[in-house]
Amino acid sequence: MEYSAQAQLIITYLKNLQTTICNGLEMVDGSTKFRHDDWQRPAGGGGQTRVLADGAVFEKGGVNFSAINGEIPPFLQKEIQEHFPQMPASTHFLATGISIVIHPQSPLVPIIHMNIRYFETNNGAYWFGGGIDLTPHYVMHDDANYFHNQLKNVCDKLSAETYNNYKNWADDYFYIKHRNETRGIGGIFFDKLWANETHTIHNIMEFWQNIGNTFLPTYTQLVNKNKTKNYTAEQKRFQLLRRGRYVEFNLVYDRGTKFGLETDGRIESILMSLPKHVSWEYDANSTLGTEELATLALLKKGVNWLGN
Amino acid sequence: MEYSAQAQLIITYLKNLQTTICNGLEMVDGSTKFRHDDWQRPAGGGGQTRVLADGAVFEKGGVNFSAINGEIPPFLQKEIQEHFPQMPASTHFLATGISIVIHPQSPLVPIIHMNIRYFETNNGAYWFGGGIDLTPHYVMHDDANYFHNQLKNVCDKLSAETYNNYKNWADDYFYIKHRNETRGIGGIFFDKLWANETHTIHNIMEFWQNIGNTFLPTYTQLVNKNKTKNYTAEQKRFQLLRRGRYVEFNLVYDRGTKFGLETDGRIESILMSLPKHVSWEYDANSTLGTEELATLALLKKGVNWLGN
Repeated sequence: MEYSAQAQLIITYLKNLQTTICNGLEMVDGSTKFRHDDWQRPAGGGGQTRVLADGAVFEKGGVNFSAINGEIPPFLQKEIQEHFPQMPASTHFLATGISIVIHPQSPLVPIIHMNIRYFETNNGAYWFGGGIDLTPHYVMHDDANYFHNQLKNVCDKLSAETYNNYKNWADDYFYIKHRNETRGIGGIFFDKLWANETHTIHNIMEFWQNIGNTFLPTYTQLVNKNKTKNYTAEQKRFQLLRRGRYVEFNLVYDRGTKFGLETDGRIESILMSLPKHVSWEYDANSTLGTEELATLALLKKGVNWLGN
Repeated sequence: MEYSAQAQLIITYLKNLQTTICNGLEMVDGSTKFRHDDWQRPAGGGGQTRVLADGAVFEKGGVNFSAINGEIPPFLQKEIQEHFPQMPASTHFLATGISIVIHPQSPLVPIIHMNIRYFETNNGAYWFGGGIDLTPHYVMHDDANYFHNQLKNVCDKLSAETYNNYKNWADDYFYIKHRNETRGIGGIFFDKLWANETHTIHNIMEFWQNIGNTFLPTYTQLVNKNKTKNYTAEQKRFQLLRRGRYVEFNLVYDRGTKFGLETDGRIESILMSLPKHVSWEYDANSTLGTEELATLALLKKGVNWLGN
């Protein structure tokens, strides 16, 4: 498939962003470097997985770029026709994006996830999607407030409703139904975004790139603020339990993970999101302290993190 | 719903078996006791979850009994009509069983799982199901041979084909598709077993109880043989990675887990199957030693474990 000029620009942007973010995270960590693995997808396209492990600050993290293409599978064909009923049917697709999950060593530093993605077909259908959410092991009000205000600043440039709409979407998406808990304090999530009466393609691409660009300064700020704080064995234990929830979300609900597992994606790249050390205890909630219970009480949909 | 006389006998058998197995495992461990949690299901029935943790031999284990009843949900109605087309439609069901997962401390002691279950409706449809499978962190030929021969002995009393049929079923069921690995060395798996031209209800119930009865002596033998062996840090690391696969299987594929999560089952009882300490490393396979690779090479369908 011939990629559009737009797609080629986007791929260049994503590759540069991957390098920028990896360089930035290496500086924050100070003790370890990302390993690079190039891979090809037999059915078309490929990617570069970058992972780091056992750093001073980061226990495990991945910053994955991929640009895969091929014939449109039936379930995608259905989605495309639903959203672009006026277009002639396409036969081939390109899906490109960056996916990031970072698990820090310290329970006082939050886990972060970002994914920005672009999709197009050979007949001109396209859309943008993305999401970024923060999973503090311990919810700290100032950090949550800062994180959500950073996202709101990006969203407000697109429109006044964007933050609320995409924040609510994230609350619904990053939700662990069987635990009746959100994964963390949410963030924003969106999909199937394309030019319309309200937004030009230029507006949308700028918004989408602004999300990508805000990742590194926002996370760096949160990491540097908390990475040297001392923590207790009880806080470490709680971190391992919270990571268990992260695994539950990713293996049971996450669409990207499920899509990857079902379509024979590169398994090590898909599951790089799983933390190195994780723990499950029976009925752990009944043994938690007040600080831990205070965090659990905040893992709900609909919390307004913007106010002081 | 009024339970049948058969169901009442079965429930008594299961409750006694739960106690026998827990007592036996406590003796093998020698340092810890099962905790008992009775629970009620709002929509009908309940159970008793028994878990142990941080023992000398067992790191985490659960032996769960449940007997739940209620109105038949649509997906079950479909299953019943498929298997009992001649029967008048039922409105209520009973599902009872025992579910066991034991995670040992030592990487040289295998993980074991067993589930035996009985289902009936208010109009007389019923079936038996079950499964038992062994997940050694390191596959040892003598142990695998012993385990499968124990199961074959039980199966042979039902019929000459039973072991092969149910062994193949287990190979297919306990399979981690995205890893192209079986979970362990398999065992047996079966479902929808009821009286027919070949087997009387008496034959079937005896077979089913024989599986339940063989669990404790079989596992005790394997644990006692291996529990005092010394192991290395590398073997411990490999155990944590193998436990990661166990989590992947249970959260992504296991029908009982999925059923529980989707029907608002008691979450702590469902997820007691997850190990206490687990680990994921990126591209771990490329760093394994020969002993570990030898085990990976054996995690395939269709291995004949019976021969010497």
